[in-house]
Amino acid sequence: MMTNPKMQALGEKRSVIREIFEYAKVRKAEIGEQNVFDFSIGNPSVPAPDCVNEAICRIVKETPSVLLHGYTSAQGDASVRKTIADYINARFNTRLTGDNLYMTCGAAASLTISIHALANPGEEFITFAPYFTEYKVFVEGAGCTLNALPSDEKLLPDFSALEKAITAKTRGVIINSPNNPSGVVYGEQTIQKLVEILNRKQAELGTDIYLIADEPYRELVYDCEIKVPFVMNYYANSLVCYSYSKSLSLPGERIGYIAVNPDMVGAKSVYAAVCGAGRSLGYVCAPALLQRVVAACVDKTADVSVYKQNRDTFYQALTAYGYDVVKPDGAFYLFVKALEEDAYAFCERAKKYELLLVPGDDFGTKGYVRIAYCVAPETISRALPAFEKLAKEYQAKV
Amino acid sequence: MMTNPKMQALGEKRSVIREIFEYAKVRKAEIGEQNVFDFSIGNPSVPAPDCVNEAICRIVKETPSVLLHGYTSAQGDASVRKTIADYINARFNTRLTGDNLYMTCGAAASLTISIHALANPGEEFITFAPYFTEYKVFVEGAGCTLNALPSDEKLLPDFSALEKAITAKTRGVIINSPNNPSGVVYGEQTIQKLVEILNRKQAELGTDIYLIADEPYRELVYDCEIKVPFVMNYYANSLVCYSYSKSLSLPGERIGYIAVNPDMVGAKSVYAAVCGAGRSLGYVCAPALLQRVVAACVDKTADVSVYKQNRDTFYQALTAYGYDVVKPDGAFYLFVKALEEDAYAFCERAKKYELLLVPGDDFGTKGYVRIAYCVAPETISRALPAFEKLAKEYQAKV
Repeated sequence: MMTNPKMQALGEKRSVIREIFEYAKVRKAEIGEQNVFDFSIGNPSVPAPDCVNEAICRIVKETPSVLLHGYTSAQGDASVRKTIADYINARFNTRLTGDNLYMTCGAAASLTISIHALANPGEEFITFAPYFTEYKVFVEGAGCTLNALPSDEKLLPDFSALEKAITAKTRGVIINSPNNPSGVVYGEQTIQKLVEILNRKQAELGTDIYLIADEPYRELVYDCEIKVPFVMNYYANSLVCYSYSKSLSLPGERIGYIAVNPDMVGAKSVYAAVCGAGRSLGYVCAPALLQRVVAACVDKTADVSVYKQNRDTFYQALTAYGYDVVKPDGAFYLFVKALEEDAYAFCERAKKYELLLVPGDDFGTKGYVRIAYCVAPETISRALPAFEKLAKEYQAKV
Repeated sequence: MMTNPKMQALGEKRSVIREIFEYAKVRKAEIGEQNVFDFSIGNPSVPAPDCVNEAICRIVKETPSVLLHGYTSAQGDASVRKTIADYINARFNTRLTGDNLYMTCGAAASLTISIHALANPGEEFITFAPYFTEYKVFVEGAGCTLNALPSDEKLLPDFSALEKAITAKTRGVIINSPNNPSGVVYGEQTIQKLVEILNRKQAELGTDIYLIADEPYRELVYDCEIKVPFVMNYYANSLVCYSYSKSLSLPGERIGYIAVNPDMVGAKSVYAAVCGAGRSLGYVCAPALLQRVVAACVDKTADVSVYKQNRDTFYQALTAYGYDVVKPDGAFYLFVKALEEDAYAFCERAKKYELLLVPGDDFGTKGYVRIAYCVAPETISRALPAFEKLAKEYQAKV
């Protein structure tokens, strides 16, 4: 045995999404970029807002090199953390200080660090399917198990399943709203019901059950009546794992944070464990220049109106063609029922029309596919006839 | 138990170096920055070469935002990896391709990813004291143990100890040359002897023993006759963990790579395990802009002549005052014998003269202190009288 076989398997398999992403590259080279309809990856299609590149160039010019590119504190530059804490407080009426924030290399780092900080091997995290595939990888990397519970037909948590699933081994619940892959947003009632169960179970079991809110899509919500509740205002034992990847269209730059709710009992210990986990996993500090950039752009977002337009076009067209789609309130994904039971077979058939979709099985929900609509609007208009033909092929079969 | 107690302890203790770094901040506020002689942290004191900030601004202007700030492949942008592979090949006469390189968030990430990729819980890594303190944290984070072997009086590996220490559980040997904290460089003879033992033990035990070369200080060597051998040219089962933190004065930006020797048996499996470990630890990709920046500056280094000047001044003065110093060939550290047996007590005494030094105990070698001389030359000239007084205080005692 030359390697850790689990790690080798993870590296060899890659995620299904990455696999399709690589197939797309090859296929585009074969038949031309415009003829491949790649809806596989959640790479933002709108540029970063101007303030980002302006801030990069300004900060580079204004800041002495040794200070700018030097180590920050492991938890992040103090003034950056203060700026972000102040912004969150103003927006959500919270009482965070910079010392409740830990800057990270993006949402994946926020999650792995939080999980390693809180969990002991053998413990369990709960999430609701469909869920972001890498949760399983991150949780298992900490020696824990992920219990993915079903959702109801609106793709909201099945609370009776949650009641039954929580045991003394349950260390946390991971939620992701707006959701990848479904685009569903958990409204206030959902959060209240969830929190009611968690509080009750904590009291019953005498344990701490942490609520980890994975929120890279927080700013990507398309109707003004849709609110994404800020979990800290509902539940003391909560951590928010944020990333600027989607809100500022910076996924490659790896920048985000963990916010530890100051209202939780033992908040300082949990924060210390976050610092320790970051250290153990090799995260020395989040990229220094980008820390300053996100602080400079703390109240800005990329122009997400394109995503709304894409959602509306796509949702209306697919529904008209006979597809069964849960209308997404946020993120940039459609979660669509496959037209046959086996989503893999459906995706293979879609490939013949050069439509690259991701089977829902990998998100823990069989019989669905994910469509990432963070693409140019023209890609959607050119792809729609292919979706129509695909639907007709199935309708002809019946 | 609210957290993982190991992680909490790691976060609460912080590293001794960080602890002193924080003390220095407080002390500077009390008595003025110029009156505190902080030799605790290895934060480069020379600016990044001009090409770095030029490249940042140029790349930001030239590259469309979605491409620039988007995800790269998990292993790093293909053209960046090719550029670096070509550079290494030209310099060291190796045969790397981009597919042997995995871009990382700096040396700490390179190490943790390599360790998690190769090791199974319960296995062992060997290193030689004095060693960079975080090795223990990274190795234990993978469920393994670090066996730190003694060095000889020149602070080179004790090979008879190595012969005895290698067992069937030995998964790898971590070396760090130029060394933090000693500045010692392992010359060709040292590498040859090391490799001879590793090859022999591999044959005897029928195992793979990987040589992990942690090389953030490769470019920081001060005399033209000093060569740092490139381990891939000596040993098939080798990985190079590189970082641009010191060579380009970019420690806060977190950028480096892992190079997997293509000559090793199973190089593809090891590379896959590296990709899997990166994924498991939450490293989605190395910061995208910085990947392009280091490729643009691949053959540049910061002006390290200041470090050489600092080393010479410091070494000559301390030797003249009666300190016992191993002359460092590289890095930016002096490893000095404490003037009493207990290095902690010595550091406390030095603090009275506002000299902030790091006890060698934390690097696995008792009775020494580390002095980081990556500071302004004036800091050294102002600090020297304090070192002289400190030595005299001890001489008066005898």
